[in-house]
Amino acid sequence: MTVNTTFLGLGAMGSALATTAWDAGHRVVAWNRTGHRAQSLRDRGVAIADSVEEAVADARTVVVCLFDDASVRDVLGPVSTALSGRSVINVTTTTPNQSRDLARWAEERGIDLLDGAIMAVPEMIGGPGSTIFYSGSATAFASHRPLLDLWAESSYVGSDPGMAALYDTAMLSGMYAMFAGFLHGAAMVGSEGVSAGEFVRRQAPFLAAMTEQLAGFAATVDEQDYLGPGQQSLRFTETALATVRQASTGQGVTDEVLEPVHDIIRRQIAAGFAEHGTARMFEEMRSAR
Amino acid sequence: MTVNTTFLGLGAMGSALATTAWDAGHRVVAWNRTGHRAQSLRDRGVAIADSVEEAVADARTVVVCLFDDASVRDVLGPVSTALSGRSVINVTTTTPNQSRDLARWAEERGIDLLDGAIMAVPEMIGGPGSTIFYSGSATAFASHRPLLDLWAESSYVGSDPGMAALYDTAMLSGMYAMFAGFLHGAAMVGSEGVSAGEFVRRQAPFLAAMTEQLAGFAATVDEQDYLGPGQQSLRFTETALATVRQASTGQGVTDEVLEPVHDIIRRQIAAGFAEHGTARMFEEMRSAR
Repeated sequence: MTVNTTFLGLGAMGSALATTAWDAGHRVVAWNRTGHRAQSLRDRGVAIADSVEEAVADARTVVVCLFDDASVRDVLGPVSTALSGRSVINVTTTTPNQSRDLARWAEERGIDLLDGAIMAVPEMIGGPGSTIFYSGSATAFASHRPLLDLWAESSYVGSDPGMAALYDTAMLSGMYAMFAGFLHGAAMVGSEGVSAGEFVRRQAPFLAAMTEQLAGFAATVDEQDYLGPGQQSLRFTETALATVRQASTGQGVTDEVLEPVHDIIRRQIAAGFAEHGTARMFEEMRSAR
Repeated sequence: MTVNTTFLGLGAMGSALATTAWDAGHRVVAWNRTGHRAQSLRDRGVAIADSVEEAVADARTVVVCLFDDASVRDVLGPVSTALSGRSVINVTTTTPNQSRDLARWAEERGIDLLDGAIMAVPEMIGGPGSTIFYSGSATAFASHRPLLDLWAESSYVGSDPGMAALYDTAMLSGMYAMFAGFLHGAAMVGSEGVSAGEFVRRQAPFLAAMTEQLAGFAATVDEQDYLGPGQQSLRFTETALATVRQASTGQGVTDEVLEPVHDIIRRQIAAGFAEHGTARMFEEMRSAR
C-alpha cells in the first residue's frame, strides 16, 4: 500500500492545504463534490479521485476541509469502514460539541481523529503568521507534525476534541467584533463625508495599539481583582458607550453593534459593581445563560 | 496681564494635561470642583484656584476636561462674560452634536472654541502613541500648537466643531467592540478552565495581525466593490458567526455580544447580498435608522 494523504474538500482552504502538501513532496489524492474546483490541483499533477471511496482507498491520512459539520457527516459516513485504522484530520469549522460528537463517532469506528481549527485565510497557509489549533488524538498530532507544520504553526491545545474548535471560535469572537466595530466607526465618520480609507489610516494602528490593553484585562480576570489600580471603571465605560451610541444615532448610523456591550455593563452596574473595572464584563458573560 | 493657561477639571486626564504643561514651563492655574484632587498638582507648585471665576481671571487659554457636556455647561455658564475674547479648549468627551451646540454658544459670547478628543489613557499623555483630535477654531488650533503638541500628536480634523468628537467616538466603537469580543472569547475558553492569561497570549497578537485586514475593508467600502476578488462573503461570515454563537451557548456563555453583528449580516443576506463581501455590513449600518 502506498502512503497517500487524501484531501476531501477543495474550497479555497482545502486547496491551499493540498497544494502546500503536494509542493512539499507529499503524495496527494484529492476529491471535491463538484469537479471544477479540482482543476487547478489537477493542472499541478495531483491525482483527483472521482469518488470519496476511491479517494480514501490508499490513504494513511485523510484531511477533511468541508463546508460544515453536516457535510463532514455526509461525506465520511459512507466510507467509515474504510477509514478504520486510519487517521482523519478534520479542519472543517465546527462547534466544540460537534467536534466532540464526531470524535465519539470516530472512536466507535476505530478512526484516529485529530480535530483542527485554522486561524488563517487560505492565502496565509504555508506562510508566516498563521496558526492551526489541534485537539483530540495526541498520537495523530505527534505522528503528523511533518505535514501539519507545512501549513502553519501547529498548536496542540488538549485531548478534549472540542478544544481546538473552542479556541478557534473564541478567537473569532474578538475578530468579528472588531471588524463590526471598525465598520460601524467608518459609517459614523462616513456620514460626514470622511472616506473609510482616511478613517482606517488612523483606526488600524489605534486598534493594534489597544490590543496591548488586553493583557491587563486578562490579569484582572485571572486574579479576580476588579478593584485593583489603573482600571477604567464600568461607570466610566458606561458613560463613554452612551456617548458613542448618541454620536452614532445623531449621525443617522445605527448603534446596534454596541447595544449588547452597553447592556452587559449596565447589568453589572445594576448589580452593584459601578466602580469595578471594565474587565468585569467577563463575569456577566460567563454567568448569563 | 500674565499669560496663564487654566485647567478646569483635575480628574486623571485633566491632571495629566496640567502636569505636562507645568513640567514644560507653562504658567498654570488649576481648579477642580472637589479640592482633594488638586493636591498632587499643589504639591508640584501649581497655583490652585478656589473658584472658577478666580481660575479664569488671568487666563489667555482655558483647558476644560470635565465629566461630561452637562458639567461643561455648569462650569462655563457662570463665567461666560469673563471668557469673551479668550480661547477655550474643551477636551471633555462629548457627542458631535454637543460639541456643535457648545461652539454655537461660544461664538455668541465671543469665545474662541477648539474642541478636542483624546485618544489616550492619562498615563499616555506626553508620551508616544497618543493622538488628540481637534476641530472647530483653526486659529485657536494654530496658535496653541506649542501647548497641544506637549500632550500628544495633534490632529486637526475640520472646522465643523463636531468632527473631533465624531472621530473620537468612531474610533472608540472599534475599541470597545474589540474589548467586548476579547472578554467574550476569554469567557468561552474559561468555561473549560483555560486562563485569560493563556488566551490573551494567543488572542492579542492575532487581533493585532487582523487589523491589517481593515484596509481591505476600507478600500471595498470606498470603491463600493462588494463583489471584488478575495473577499469573505456574507454567506461565509454568517455561517462562521452562527458557529461561534453555538460554541458560546454550548459552553454556557452568553453570545449576545455577537447577536447584532449576526443580525446585520442576516439582514443584508435577506436583501439579496449573500455573495457580497463582509464589508457590506457598512451599508446596513449607515442605512438603518
